[in-house]
Amino acid sequence: MGSGCTKPGRGGVAPCVALDAAQPFDFESKKQKEKNDLEAPAEAAGPVPGNQRDTDCDVPKLKIGVVGFGTFGQFLAKRFVSQGHTVLATSRSDRYQDLAKELGVRYFSNVDDFCEEHPEVVVLCTSILSTEQVVTNFPFLRLKRNTLLVDVLSVKEFPKKLMLRQVPEEFDILCTHPMFGPDSGKASWEGLPMMFDRVRVNAENPVNEERCHNFLRIFEHEGCRMIPMTCEEHDRQAASTQFITHTVGRMLGDMQLESTKINTKGYESLLNLIDNTCNDSFELYYGLFMYNQNATETLEAMERSFDRTKKRLFDQLHEVLREQLFGDDQPEHILKQQKKLKS
Amino acid sequence: MGSGCTKPGRGGVAPCVALDAAQPFDFESKKQKEKNDLEAPAEAAGPVPGNQRDTDCDVPKLKIGVVGFGTFGQFLAKRFVSQGHTVLATSRSDRYQDLAKELGVRYFSNVDDFCEEHPEVVVLCTSILSTEQVVTNFPFLRLKRNTLLVDVLSVKEFPKKLMLRQVPEEFDILCTHPMFGPDSGKASWEGLPMMFDRVRVNAENPVNEERCHNFLRIFEHEGCRMIPMTCEEHDRQAASTQFITHTVGRMLGDMQLESTKINTKGYESLLNLIDNTCNDSFELYYGLFMYNQNATETLEAMERSFDRTKKRLFDQLHEVLREQLFGDDQPEHILKQQKKLKS
Repeated sequence: MGSGCTKPGRGGVAPCVALDAAQPFDFESKKQKEKNDLEAPAEAAGPVPGNQRDTDCDVPKLKIGVVGFGTFGQFLAKRFVSQGHTVLATSRSDRYQDLAKELGVRYFSNVDDFCEEHPEVVVLCTSILSTEQVVTNFPFLRLKRNTLLVDVLSVKEFPKKLMLRQVPEEFDILCTHPMFGPDSGKASWEGLPMMFDRVRVNAENPVNEERCHNFLRIFEHEGCRMIPMTCEEHDRQAASTQFITHTVGRMLGDMQLESTKINTKGYESLLNLIDNTCNDSFELYYGLFMYNQNATETLEAMERSFDRTKKRLFDQLHEVLREQLFGDDQPEHILKQQKKLKS
Repeated sequence: MGSGCTKPGRGGVAPCVALDAAQPFDFESKKQKEKNDLEAPAEAAGPVPGNQRDTDCDVPKLKIGVVGFGTFGQFLAKRFVSQGHTVLATSRSDRYQDLAKELGVRYFSNVDDFCEEHPEVVVLCTSILSTEQVVTNFPFLRLKRNTLLVDVLSVKEFPKKLMLRQVPEEFDILCTHPMFGPDSGKASWEGLPMMFDRVRVNAENPVNEERCHNFLRIFEHEGCRMIPMTCEEHDRQAASTQFITHTVGRMLGDMQLESTKINTKGYESLLNLIDNTCNDSFELYYGLFMYNQNATETLEAMERSFDRTKKRLFDQLHEVLREQLFGDDQPEHILKQQKKLKS
């Protein structure tokens, strides 16, 4: 089952053309891993018992393929399995074989084998920085033409434009941002925000509508707060929420702050923030900056506000010193200015 | 009762000298208020019913005078009353008469009248910026020589040195920092940090020891986390906890951030921080800066960390651009540098 079950002929596109057109997913690691691809995954076909607690939930079952099996890919895959979906995964590294097996996920380090399994939904869980390379080289033509492609990146305009450009037009595209992760969504997802934009869902085919609906129901079922929003609006809002949060966390993380006996509640919330943001890779933070065109502006606004705050402190310091030095003997215009500052 | 019950002769210091030596507390407002001083307070001698829930607690009852009846003074006075202590208060303004009465606090806008009531413990609840003026002009000689003077400022070295310099040497001095306020300590004080430094408590007189102990028991009884710490150590730790927290809150407050539909938990903790810090007066923030000699260094460290964070982002941006422009054709030293950055 692990590989080789290529459907002959897929209508519209001749299979040999498709095979030729599809670029290898990852040149560097392909050779080393090909020999391993036929092993292991077949034994891990079903969810492991520990994850079955929720399999009788009312979410219709999907065959979901996860591309990129890093922390976030694993995090989502685990929850998909727990709801009883069939979950496949692929990534460049072979080291996830055992972990995937444990989680009840069929793992393919060969992306062609992965595609030939024909998942109904393919969820891109790549890092922001690697997404362009992955999408550009992805063998879409080995998937069924009618597949739903989903991304879960923390920036949204970039993958939307990328997918509209690179993904064959028969595919549906759903851009999402589950605004939580292995830390904040460790136990329940109740109330956690799940932004989505149905970028391209074929409304003429009820199958497509239903598949998209069913995929979103996975998150609804977990209690997420579902937020329909355009990718553009997301990035505008995220620059002044998520990017600021990460920047504050990174800045304070750089200061090597420590817990003291006299922590206030406010200070403890900052220590938590440092933990949460600095646990993420610097690559993610860089991605939020690089791939959100609003981020530079936000960074500049933060700098201006920091400078203004300092200026207010130092202005007041000068005022106090001036009063001590000159008292009421100061020039009229300075006294007027002081009155204004005080009011 | 409100005024005039001066004890004749107080041993050691002749009363008339004391009266002369004691400077008026507040020249400007004194005249306007003198006529009101004999009214109102006498009726408000006992705690009002609503605050009596805790009067049967095991904390020995004290006669506590609160100097400065702003937000924090009121906040403490209320809790003192609720424990069944006799509470007096004084401040320059007359507008607190009604409020004090409501809280079960006897209020004096004339500080001489306040002192002649002979509170056992006097708690300075003035703002950081006004403390020096208040202490310098305070009629200590109208109090009993054996009085415990307590401050509750958010900086500690400054009031310690000020009181050691200005307060007659017969007085005991206790420096404290209840690290919470009307917001964070609105309901329970359970687990909230209460820092204290027994700066000068006459160990030879068991009455003094017991009075200091009993005052601290007020906070213990409320469940505070009691933290003995020197004033110097407090200021060192506070500069890199409290002052950073306030600076981040002020900086973000200046940015006019708004709640969005896609708030993450981290972002919400920042919004909370803005609320909490910007609810305090700018004067408090300025006080934390001006009267903590470690604060300038902290501000500089924050600036350096912000700059380093930006630099890391822009360095990586340049690196990506260089790679796109030059690929592997870059000079050897640049390629080496890039390898180093990535590792």
